[in-house]
Amino acid sequence: MSLALVLDLFGTFFFAVSGSLLAARRQFDIVGSLFLGSVAGLGGGVIRDLVLGQVPSAFDRPVYLIPPLAAALVVFFLLGSVERFRRLLLVFDAGGLALFCITGTVKALEAGMNPAASALLGVTTAVGGGLLRDVVANREPQLFNRRDLYAVPAMLGAGLVTVLWHAGMFGTAAALGVAAVVFGLRVLSLHYGWHIPRAAGTWHGSRRE
Amino acid sequence: MSLALVLDLFGTFFFAVSGSLLAARRQFDIVGSLFLGSVAGLGGGVIRDLVLGQVPSAFDRPVYLIPPLAAALVVFFLLGSVERFRRLLLVFDAGGLALFCITGTVKALEAGMNPAASALLGVTTAVGGGLLRDVVANREPQLFNRRDLYAVPAMLGAGLVTVLWHAGMFGTAAALGVAAVVFGLRVLSLHYGWHIPRAAGTWHGSRRE
Amino acid sequence: MSLALVLDLFGTFFFAVSGSLLAARRQFDIVGSLFLGSVAGLGGGVIRDLVLGQVPSAFDRPVYLIPPLAAALVVFFLLGSVERFRRLLLVFDAGGLALFCITGTVKALEAGMNPAASALLGVTTAVGGGLLRDVVANREPQLFNRRDLYAVPAMLGAGLVTVLWHAGMFGTAAALGVAAVVFGLRVLSLHYGWHIPRAAGTWHGSRRE
Repeated sequence: MSLALVLDLFGTFFFAVSGSLLAARRQFDIVGSLFLGSVAGLGGGVIRDLVLGQVPSAFDRPVYLIPPLAAALVVFFLLGSVERFRRLLLVFDAGGLALFCITGTVKALEAGMNPAASALLGVTTAVGGGLLRDVVANREPQLFNRRDLYAVPAMLGAGLVTVLWHAGMFGTAAALGVAAVVFGLRVLSLHYGWHIPRAAGTWHGSRRE
Repeated sequence: MSLALVLDLFGTFFFAVSGSLLAARRQFDIVGSLFLGSVAGLGGGVIRDLVLGQVPSAFDRPVYLIPPLAAALVVFFLLGSVERFRRLLLVFDAGGLALFCITGTVKALEAGMNPAASALLGVTTAVGGGLLRDVVANREPQLFNRRDLYAVPAMLGAGLVTVLWHAGMFGTAAALGVAAVVFGLRVLSLHYGWHIPRAAGTWHGSRRE
Repeated sequence: MSLALVLDLFGTFFFAVSGSLLAARRQFDIVGSLFLGSVAGLGGGVIRDLVLGQVPSAFDRPVYLIPPLAAALVVFFLLGSVERFRRLLLVFDAGGLALFCITGTVKALEAGMNPAASALLGVTTAVGGGLLRDVVANREPQLFNRRDLYAVPAMLGAGLVTVLWHAGMFGTAAALGVAAVVFGLRVLSLHYGWHIPRAAGTWHGSRRE
């Protein structure tokens, strides 16, 4: 199996666990868990592949159905009773984010997209699954959290991959390094509450004259 | 007209009525009713056709615009004042579910997809329209109801169609039989409250040691 | 640059401003603003291009990334502190609606779609971005507002473009005229509270016997 496939399957599994954990929180049934896990795990890749004009991997290669099934089972048997549910969801979500910003960017570069579009598609892949998960579960997407960094690590990762690829320096070590940076930045921002300015420069405090 | 087209148009009509009924409940205007009906009736097929790399039927064949128009008119003139609104919505939704899990699976099989992917696309087609309807109307999707079976009948139907197709036994009688099974199972689960275990095995009651 | 591209970029900018304004209202951060603006500005066109079986412009031509960036900056530096936020969002949204119902219809006609499908795709493009914006931000879509006209002006515009195109009378002047009609109708309906009947004919008042 190629590196890209392995990373993509692990990313799918991580996001699928986040979806199944959310399903457990909402007391959905086991099939609802399988669906919300599938939406979270496979959604970003389906958007990516549709944009690339390819048959979505989720429908092309049956091996992609294993991670959501495994995630629903893991949550059912192991994680359903964890206390620190919210933290666990965030950690798995961060794992998916770290891997998908890489595999999304690489797949776009391999398809011959320009650098800007490749990085954009990488970010879209990375945030897409979690976005669909939250939209489908009718809650405000993680992506719009104000108190930590979500898209920024994915943008950094997709940018790094694009640069490394064009420099001919992208390989297994680089991929794992980028994944570690993205995952680390996301988790540290959660822990320390790192954030960036609000959408409206003067929304809080005094108005500009 | 082929059997698949007839079933697809009826499925579109059933889902479109469910969308227009929801629009009536929410006091949307008649064009909002037409749109929510179109999203519900055509959404699942659009997803299916995009995954298959085809021009969506809804945009390719004008005949597909008739069911949502008819549904908006039926709700406007006939069903707007019904008392048992919720039940009626569920019955039409069940009808769409029963037909779309068949037409989605058949279209995927005819396009040469593998069996697992075909069944998956059938289920996606069947639950997709209702999911989009509920997401767009900003309510928790029917799909995640805990008190009855929604995806399970669609999965059973898509699986049956896949098996019958590969056994060379799929025809009009088989299609109608499968539709009856899916519709019956869905409606009976509503009536008797049949359900399956929750996403988290130990969420309720004592914890496993 | 062709007329269609110019109109499409302005439409993207208008919708992107509406998205970034909503992000400011919700106190999202600046990257959340960029994302919600991108979803609003690029979403309708992505749906349009996927239906047409083309690589979405947003991913094909980097120039499409400029409007959302500009919109996030404009909201950050200029519009974040405006008092009449809601009105401003609606005006920009109306501008996007007016331009996208034209560019969506034209692109479909140029791709050889039939008239009904072209008009439908134009309307889908026009309402799609705003719909995705509101769905992603977890609020009831503008499209379903009961107190004014939203889809009706877009339908009128898409219909006019289809007729003018087939009559060989579509050009810059016609495009600007249609845009003015759609924008004017939308804004006047907001101001005067023009609306159309509800989805259910007899929902209010006495029942039909």
